[in-house]
Amino acid sequence: MQPLVELYEVEVEGPSLTDNTGDLDRLKRAVAEQLSGHDPVVPYSCLARVAANFRQGGFVGGAVVNHLAAGPELVDFIEKSAAPLVGMALDLGTTHLEAVLVELASGRRLAEANRENSQIKFGADILSRIHHGAEPGGLAALHAAVIADVNDLALNLAGQAGLVAENIRALSVSGNTTMVHLFLNLDPYYLIREPYIPMVNAPDPCHAEELGLVINPSGVVWVMPSVGSYFGGDLVSGVVASGLASGDKVSMLIDVGTNAEVIVGNSEWLIACAGAAGPALEGGVAKMGMRAGPGAVEHVEVDPETGTLHYTTIDGGKPKGICGSGIIDLVAALYLGRIIDIRGKFRAAHDTDRLVESDEGLAYVLADGDESADGQPVLFGQVDLDAVMRSKAAMYSILTTLVNQVGISFGELERIYVAGAFGRHIAPRQAITLGMLPDLPLETFEPIGNSSLAGAELVLLDEQARRDCLGLVKKITYLELNVNQEFMIRFSGSRFIPHTDHTLFPSVPFFSDN
Amino acid sequence: MQPLVELYEVEVEGPSLTDNTGDLDRLKRAVAEQLSGHDPVVPYSCLARVAANFRQGGFVGGAVVNHLAAGPELVDFIEKSAAPLVGMALDLGTTHLEAVLVELASGRRLAEANRENSQIKFGADILSRIHHGAEPGGLAALHAAVIADVNDLALNLAGQAGLVAENIRALSVSGNTTMVHLFLNLDPYYLIREPYIPMVNAPDPCHAEELGLVINPSGVVWVMPSVGSYFGGDLVSGVVASGLASGDKVSMLIDVGTNAEVIVGNSEWLIACAGAAGPALEGGVAKMGMRAGPGAVEHVEVDPETGTLHYTTIDGGKPKGICGSGIIDLVAALYLGRIIDIRGKFRAAHDTDRLVESDEGLAYVLADGDESADGQPVLFGQVDLDAVMRSKAAMYSILTTLVNQVGISFGELERIYVAGAFGRHIAPRQAITLGMLPDLPLETFEPIGNSSLAGAELVLLDEQARRDCLGLVKKITYLELNVNQEFMIRFSGSRFIPHTDHTLFPSVPFFSDN
Repeated sequence: MQPLVELYEVEVEGPSLTDNTGDLDRLKRAVAEQLSGHDPVVPYSCLARVAANFRQGGFVGGAVVNHLAAGPELVDFIEKSAAPLVGMALDLGTTHLEAVLVELASGRRLAEANRENSQIKFGADILSRIHHGAEPGGLAALHAAVIADVNDLALNLAGQAGLVAENIRALSVSGNTTMVHLFLNLDPYYLIREPYIPMVNAPDPCHAEELGLVINPSGVVWVMPSVGSYFGGDLVSGVVASGLASGDKVSMLIDVGTNAEVIVGNSEWLIACAGAAGPALEGGVAKMGMRAGPGAVEHVEVDPETGTLHYTTIDGGKPKGICGSGIIDLVAALYLGRIIDIRGKFRAAHDTDRLVESDEGLAYVLADGDESADGQPVLFGQVDLDAVMRSKAAMYSILTTLVNQVGISFGELERIYVAGAFGRHIAPRQAITLGMLPDLPLETFEPIGNSSLAGAELVLLDEQARRDCLGLVKKITYLELNVNQEFMIRFSGSRFIPHTDHTLFPSVPFFSDN
Repeated sequence: MQPLVELYEVEVEGPSLTDNTGDLDRLKRAVAEQLSGHDPVVPYSCLARVAANFRQGGFVGGAVVNHLAAGPELVDFIEKSAAPLVGMALDLGTTHLEAVLVELASGRRLAEANRENSQIKFGADILSRIHHGAEPGGLAALHAAVIADVNDLALNLAGQAGLVAENIRALSVSGNTTMVHLFLNLDPYYLIREPYIPMVNAPDPCHAEELGLVINPSGVVWVMPSVGSYFGGDLVSGVVASGLASGDKVSMLIDVGTNAEVIVGNSEWLIACAGAAGPALEGGVAKMGMRAGPGAVEHVEVDPETGTLHYTTIDGGKPKGICGSGIIDLVAALYLGRIIDIRGKFRAAHDTDRLVESDEGLAYVLADGDESADGQPVLFGQVDLDAVMRSKAAMYSILTTLVNQVGISFGELERIYVAGAFGRHIAPRQAITLGMLPDLPLETFEPIGNSSLAGAELVLLDEQARRDCLGLVKKITYLELNVNQEFMIRFSGSRFIPHTDHTLFPSVPFFSDN
């Protein structure tokens, strides 16, 4: 477990007339002895400071070494009693940034923080940001915004831990390919133009000062490599964090953000694809949809006999809206209660007083004005239902196209890791009922939380993880769905609950009279 | 013969939907194939440019690779038809800078240039510059002056070759330890304080832009390592350029600049020392002394029978002054003509009309006002003679102390390489007569010219030379003469012509009646 940045204690004899070794050469020699003879490089930007600190410290103290794939880099010399070296792991999301501060030697978490991505003012989604980046000054503005956000988080984390930002010696960044381009001030223009080629998938580490970050100037910035334009470092993080690529048996990882990104494989091979399946499932499309947070309905049950509704919100408070897991629960319940048909349409004939006529047609009343947080009823309408049907169809089509490509059946999957907020809250039973996830024993599904952040944290702490990530991206075969005919055909069949071929979902009741 | 910077021709397929490799990753892969699989690192400062040029060039062109000890660095991508890669080798002297421009692939010299070190305005010698460096703003001013000089030379060289300075992709720098500190903007304070320890002997290479140089921003700056404060990279250059460290037999290298620096050894061991022996021999002390250049008297003969004087100037023109080799010739001739005695004092009794009374005592008229370039007589006085006697005594004492330390006799030396302007012009026969060089067969002495520059040129062109230099400095044992008792004793015995022990110089006439 070699962290990305490490302190090597050094205590050498002072110089004398019988040994003309220069200060820095003497220090490098002492450090090399602890690095199995591997000479560290001292970047020019660090040279004067390292040598002066070494002499000032009486040739006793701690050498700060960045462990890079190209070799060790000696970047600072500090007092032994200085604060322990800390690193910041960052999940660089399109809408949201999440970060943790960890002590590098022990792996102990010292602080957590998150914030909105302030690039949102230039566009809510990736596409609009890439377009903004093509305008004069656009890329610089996007870059400055994300750097300011990261600096804000760094100051926040350091403050929580009683440190200053300069104490942060490493930053690992896990994000989608576009966010990484914007973070590195690289033109994302070609990312959305066929054949969708990133400027770089695996950038070499750089120093914080080169990006204008407020953490230690010689702090190493380690960016999680991506596989392609639509398969970013955030998912590579998931592969490493889940252990997907370390077993013999074949498993799958599903990460639903703005896109659904899926990867299947084992220690020998990995195939991945991605597709637009997410918005409805993130709560981003439904009229009353919202991100998982206070006031969000996260679980819903409808008694199939009586039609009685039960729901819970994330914080137990009054409902404000409904998040992805709540939406899946709700639609599954509406199906099982026969309030909607297999095409996902409200059955007007159905008698429930929760079905009302709204401005946009029939809608289901999840909570009326009396119960809700803001006095407005929480409604779920036909438009919302249609969006969910498209999303769930896309998701199942992606999964089937992928396993078919590999030549296996879902039953051969040892495990399905479900990442993200989606994975944390979703009930696999209900997702199966909808025909969104395959009909497998529930224990097959394992939620793994924010695996983008978890992967970033791992690479801060463990050299093997860093090597794995760099090796992984060369092993992953990426299947482009945008031009895949099979996907389009499967998509049509998946636009029913659970599926046109209901033998695929033996555990889900099929209502032939719909 | 791998040059420091090399062009790798690349021609790869354009990206397609079936290969999601990022532009830069694709380029790195193509280059790595030509580097025995060794992945080049792309520094962040070069990333966007390299990737953009690669795409703009249609994935065809030349990748510019810096070959560093830590591994290859991919820093640019240019058109195949672009100007060939060139490098600048620099001898960074205390008083004088000398540089050549070479084509890196062929080693062909394209241009030569030299100029005064403009740091002279802050002090003529190393010591006064180090003192100036300790004043507020002093180091920055010294650093700025030398960078401006190097930039001036770079522009000059590029202009001569029909190029622009940005075409220069590498700079190798060979200089004494103080000059290297000032060049790198490092505090030279401790260089002159016991125990005389440099801040760094072997700095890692950096990029030209980090130093404010006008050559290509990502051009690699390779600094010749030094052994200690008084044994700089200029002499390490000499060792490599002479081949001293590659043979089985023991040889010696003498480099006379402001200091006399001497090294003895073979492929197995190397011992070096340095001492103040130079000024008089460089023409820097004698009243009419001058650097070897137009109008400098470089050779002198005095007929021992008739006392008739013959001299030649470097350019064949009228004499302006006398350079080091001329001074040695002259003093040897004065001794053989018995115009001076074995202590180096004018024999007032001697009858020659060339001996005149000047303001500062007796002086020898090398050329009277009619013959000289400026109408003033070229005189060589007792003060000048005394300085030469001190210098020659110091030189011989250094040489004997060193061989004695090693436990060999002069006769065991296979060869004595004599570097510098001194070596280029000196007549070993006359230097032996003075007792400055040991009494060995003349073919033992081999002038090797400006070996500081030659070494710098070698490391630009040859990886083995770069490795040798870095290895050499670890092998060289440095003998500190400032605290050496033996040296002081030997110095006294050497203050006679040729020596108090005249059996050491069997080939030199000894005049017992002096």
